[in-house]
Amino acid sequence: MSFKELVKVLGLGAVAVVLGVEWLDWLTRRLRVSRGPLKEVLFFPSPHVCVEHLFTRLRRFPCACPLPHGIETSFSRLLEHLLSARTSLDLCVFSFSHMELSRGILLLHKQGVIVRVVTDRDYMTITGSQIGTLRKAGICVRHEMSTAVHMHHKFALVDGKKLITGSLNWTLTAVQSNKENVMITEEPALVQPYQQEFQRLWEASDPTNHKPQTKLKPSFVISD
Amino acid sequence: MSFKELVKVLGLGAVAVVLGVEWLDWLTRRLRVSRGPLKEVLFFPSPHVCVEHLFTRLRRFPCACPLPHGIETSFSRLLEHLLSARTSLDLCVFSFSHMELSRGILLLHKQGVIVRVVTDRDYMTITGSQIGTLRKAGICVRHEMSTAVHMHHKFALVDGKKLITGSLNWTLTAVQSNKENVMITEEPALVQPYQQEFQRLWEASDPTNHKPQTKLKPSFVISD
Repeated sequence: MSFKELVKVLGLGAVAVVLGVEWLDWLTRRLRVSRGPLKEVLFFPSPHVCVEHLFTRLRRFPCACPLPHGIETSFSRLLEHLLSARTSLDLCVFSFSHMELSRGILLLHKQGVIVRVVTDRDYMTITGSQIGTLRKAGICVRHEMSTAVHMHHKFALVDGKKLITGSLNWTLTAVQSNKENVMITEEPALVQPYQQEFQRLWEASDPTNHKPQTKLKPSFVISD
Repeated sequence: MSFKELVKVLGLGAVAVVLGVEWLDWLTRRLRVSRGPLKEVLFFPSPHVCVEHLFTRLRRFPCACPLPHGIETSFSRLLEHLLSARTSLDLCVFSFSHMELSRGILLLHKQGVIVRVVTDRDYMTITGSQIGTLRKAGICVRHEMSTAVHMHHKFALVDGKKLITGSLNWTLTAVQSNKENVMITEEPALVQPYQQEFQRLWEASDPTNHKPQTKLKPSFVISD
């Protein structure tokens, strides 16, 4: 094969590869549209792997930690969905002590995403809770003020259009040790009721509508 | 107006009412189809009302209890979906002490519905748990046997096609006092992963695959 022919073959090959990638991308988007809004289900426990690349947005494993790298898990998918927020994150969670999820929220807050958190009155003060860390960073957190025994929801709304909900509390035990489920969907018929519920709870938990409490609850150990 | 005219008007009125009801029924079904598979979201706490008519399948409030009658609540909707089972009910629940939900499952079992329950090893023996009642009635219950800290799921599959899932444990506190959510859907893309997860847990919890335990866990108080 002459040099000229070789160049021709390589050139045609490159064009074919580019067109193939474009076609695959188009096909993926087309299939996604035909399947309707996003619907994804994650099950836990999730293996403990490095998720550093999700925070730094570099895919070439910048970290030298001893954890396995480059592996997609239920937790990494959950974190990816959380970090996909561009304008707002509404979080309604019973128990929140997971350090990496907390780091994710702090990062979003730093990037200008409007974060609102509603949590349980008792569980917000337990040992290991990340609620104090979020508050210290300037994130607005409210707690349930009704006579309800517990604010037991575990859902999040990303940019008001993506719902993350399930049995999973945002704790290390839940993520790494329990049998749990999380559903992620952009189906409007499911997202809207949760958005309305969040707004209702947010307004009902507004401290300006309530008298200050004189009796403080003591701290106690983490439980799900 | 003569008697003949009166009969004519009444007759035409009756025909109009019947046609109107038929048209409304057709319209409701048409709208349901155009909206796609069932998607319903329930929020709790739910008011305590009489649900006796759901068990007896009579709509004329046969019971004389002091509770409010004829009111649809989140709990009555949940119970209605549960009682809609005709062939199978697969239940995967962390904590189960709610008497009326237990009664519903016993009724389904009596009607020949195949009921399978997977529950948490520790919470199945707590005070008030209905797991023993289900077992005594001949319902097959298995508990988590892996090293997982808790089997924390709270989902049910009705006839293998309707998914009931959320934050709600099947306890009186969860139903009547907590802020909770339950989603009911027949969307295949959401139902199928839960069906597969149930089957996986069911097989993994098969006692014939495990050695008998020598150490029994002590009973303890109910908590969510």
